[in-house]
Amino acid sequence: MPTRQACLQADQKDPLASLKAHFELPAGVLYMDGNSLGVLPKAAAERSAQVIQKEWGQGLIRSWNDAGWFDLPSRLGDKLGQLIGAGAGQVVVTDTTSLNLFKSLAAALRIQQRAAPQRKVIVSERDNFPTDLYMIQGMIDLLQQGYEMRLVDEDLSLEQALDDTVAVLLLSHVNYRTGYLYDMDRVTAQAHAQGVLTIWDLAHSAGAVPVDLTRSNADFAVGCTYKYLNGGPGAPAYIWVAPRHTDSFWQPLSGWWGHQRPFDMAVAYEPAGGIRRYLCGTQPMVSLSLVECGLDISLQANMKDVRQKSLALGDLFIELVEQRCTDHPLTLITPREHAQRGSHISIRHPNGYAVMQALIARGVIGDYREPEVLRFGLTPLYLGYTDVWDAVEILKEVLDSKVWQQPEFSRRGAVT
Amino acid sequence: MPTRQACLQADQKDPLASLKAHFELPAGVLYMDGNSLGVLPKAAAERSAQVIQKEWGQGLIRSWNDAGWFDLPSRLGDKLGQLIGAGAGQVVVTDTTSLNLFKSLAAALRIQQRAAPQRKVIVSERDNFPTDLYMIQGMIDLLQQGYEMRLVDEDLSLEQALDDTVAVLLLSHVNYRTGYLYDMDRVTAQAHAQGVLTIWDLAHSAGAVPVDLTRSNADFAVGCTYKYLNGGPGAPAYIWVAPRHTDSFWQPLSGWWGHQRPFDMAVAYEPAGGIRRYLCGTQPMVSLSLVECGLDISLQANMKDVRQKSLALGDLFIELVEQRCTDHPLTLITPREHAQRGSHISIRHPNGYAVMQALIARGVIGDYREPEVLRFGLTPLYLGYTDVWDAVEILKEVLDSKVWQQPEFSRRGAVT
Repeated sequence: MPTRQACLQADQKDPLASLKAHFELPAGVLYMDGNSLGVLPKAAAERSAQVIQKEWGQGLIRSWNDAGWFDLPSRLGDKLGQLIGAGAGQVVVTDTTSLNLFKSLAAALRIQQRAAPQRKVIVSERDNFPTDLYMIQGMIDLLQQGYEMRLVDEDLSLEQALDDTVAVLLLSHVNYRTGYLYDMDRVTAQAHAQGVLTIWDLAHSAGAVPVDLTRSNADFAVGCTYKYLNGGPGAPAYIWVAPRHTDSFWQPLSGWWGHQRPFDMAVAYEPAGGIRRYLCGTQPMVSLSLVECGLDISLQANMKDVRQKSLALGDLFIELVEQRCTDHPLTLITPREHAQRGSHISIRHPNGYAVMQALIARGVIGDYREPEVLRFGLTPLYLGYTDVWDAVEILKEVLDSKVWQQPEFSRRGAVT
Repeated sequence: MPTRQACLQADQKDPLASLKAHFELPAGVLYMDGNSLGVLPKAAAERSAQVIQKEWGQGLIRSWNDAGWFDLPSRLGDKLGQLIGAGAGQVVVTDTTSLNLFKSLAAALRIQQRAAPQRKVIVSERDNFPTDLYMIQGMIDLLQQGYEMRLVDEDLSLEQALDDTVAVLLLSHVNYRTGYLYDMDRVTAQAHAQGVLTIWDLAHSAGAVPVDLTRSNADFAVGCTYKYLNGGPGAPAYIWVAPRHTDSFWQPLSGWWGHQRPFDMAVAYEPAGGIRRYLCGTQPMVSLSLVECGLDISLQANMKDVRQKSLALGDLFIELVEQRCTDHPLTLITPREHAQRGSHISIRHPNGYAVMQALIARGVIGDYREPEVLRFGLTPLYLGYTDVWDAVEILKEVLDSKVWQQPEFSRRGAVT
């Protein structure tokens, strides 16, 4: 059975321990919600002053060239690509995950329309993050071309769902609620064997779970930068398209940033070659610039170390909860198997919402997801073994004391 | 004939003169490109520190509720609405102008598809800002439902272009190149008389030209916040939908932020009532927050004073150029008539690009637009009469000395 002393020792041996110093962490907080909003890199203060005071305030319009604003989606995309097995020039950081899903879905459907027009089904997971499903529904309603959405309930039924009516499979690499991790290599191969194109949503994996889009032979991928990548609240998302597909279709959100020569001001849209055609409109430069601060820290970490620590933190968390929080109605919904687990641990409790509010009031910040789910993000770059120990201690106190039954903890905010 | 002394006096009597103190203006620069990127509000330094250090760094995930992040698109939309004649709850600040065009175009086409399915034409202006045309082209290509784009060459041919085949008229209120201002009331009435819905792009008018969407009885409007509204480079854009249309269709970029109850995590998309259904994904909070600093300054100004000064600065600029820059091949392409003029002045010169680079090197920052166009933004909130005088003096020097012929001024940057 682990001890706090053993956790302290594990922290001392942690090859990633030095990275914590690159982040601002509020005092008195055990932050286990880095899978929802990553913490602030210390470098962001200086970078924001540079972008706001110098590039915007002093450079003004000249900064589009002089400060490299116009190329920033590509420059950041190249850095981010290193974390997800993408080559240089294959990723742009831009827009939101939802919008990048729309672009990739439109492109994938068009490719299929040419190759196999009878394929009219878009498969996803019922428990996928809702915006993924909503974007599919919006696309289907817009196109009015007989497309339909088919939802599967778990990994096992995927094989059954993929047949010659299916155009596209859209999955989250790691499930936002359960933390279930798909085997991207296997599922992609399975989809391709059925003639199905794949879109991977990396929101809950990139930065915490090894991703190698090239090796996996994936078709499209999107993701956000504000979770494990610590890019800042709502920071722009990213999109990757397999080079074999990039130039085959111009996605329909064809704004001027995706034009081959945007400043020619030509009447006819002509898409840029490569991934830049997935750009649309002018990007929010202050938020976009700050993405780099988080990426630069992630790029210092060895992804093998990150994965190893993430799993070890998860094992520790599960073990401690099971040992120390007995006699409480807790149900682990995250797979124990390493091969099926992302970097957050989810536990159901019938009063999950109130329990989480009570935890937050004591400085253990996780989050709550319907239904009944307590979600704890384990972020290897700034969370240690002792943090996990201390968090479980507080969880135990909250449960044993029944403090969560106080009415204040059941009151719902706008964002729960 | 105006004198510099008279300009100084006009600045002293300017009712907007005090607003200049709210902005950071670089020393040694006459900034006449506020129609492309507005200047930095002084309040942005403190606001960015608050959002980055306090809300993100300390508040972390709690700031979605505690700092009001989730409601920010609406809260800013309500402020912005006051500048464009929109009621409370009718505007959201979100995404980019291009994306908001896509949403409004999809909604307008759907409304027409139900009411008058034979209407398959989208009318715009050949000289519209290209992204407007590109988004139309992307939509047409995506839908494959027989839509077509019809481009008119000038205001006068609009009447001819609008007939019972036309679904939507998409126009920029002020032309980005020429500064031509459409009469929104008249054109909207003209369109409606033909059964055509209108989408107005306010990028080059809001904040500098009076806009009253309600009085004009417009249908949809979009615009950006980083020009006359001084929201910051690439800051999120906005969308307004006439209340009579808002709930009639859910636009296809139907991400979770537009859901009626986003945190229920329901499988089926159910659009929020009202303008919030035009939200899609998570917004870049740092950039979004800074929009408020610029809006708060604009809200201090009386729009009548803004318009009066804008026109007076324009008259002065035209008069001085014509008097002092004779013997140079300059052609005014902006209408002289007040009723047809926005807030920037455009002048063609056969070597426009080099002339503008030479001007910029001397601290007069305007911009260049193809073909041959020198563009000068006249921003009443921080530009004075004496600034215009001094800028024309420098223009005269650049032209008389032929300094623009130096090869360095012909070299093109990425963003011209």
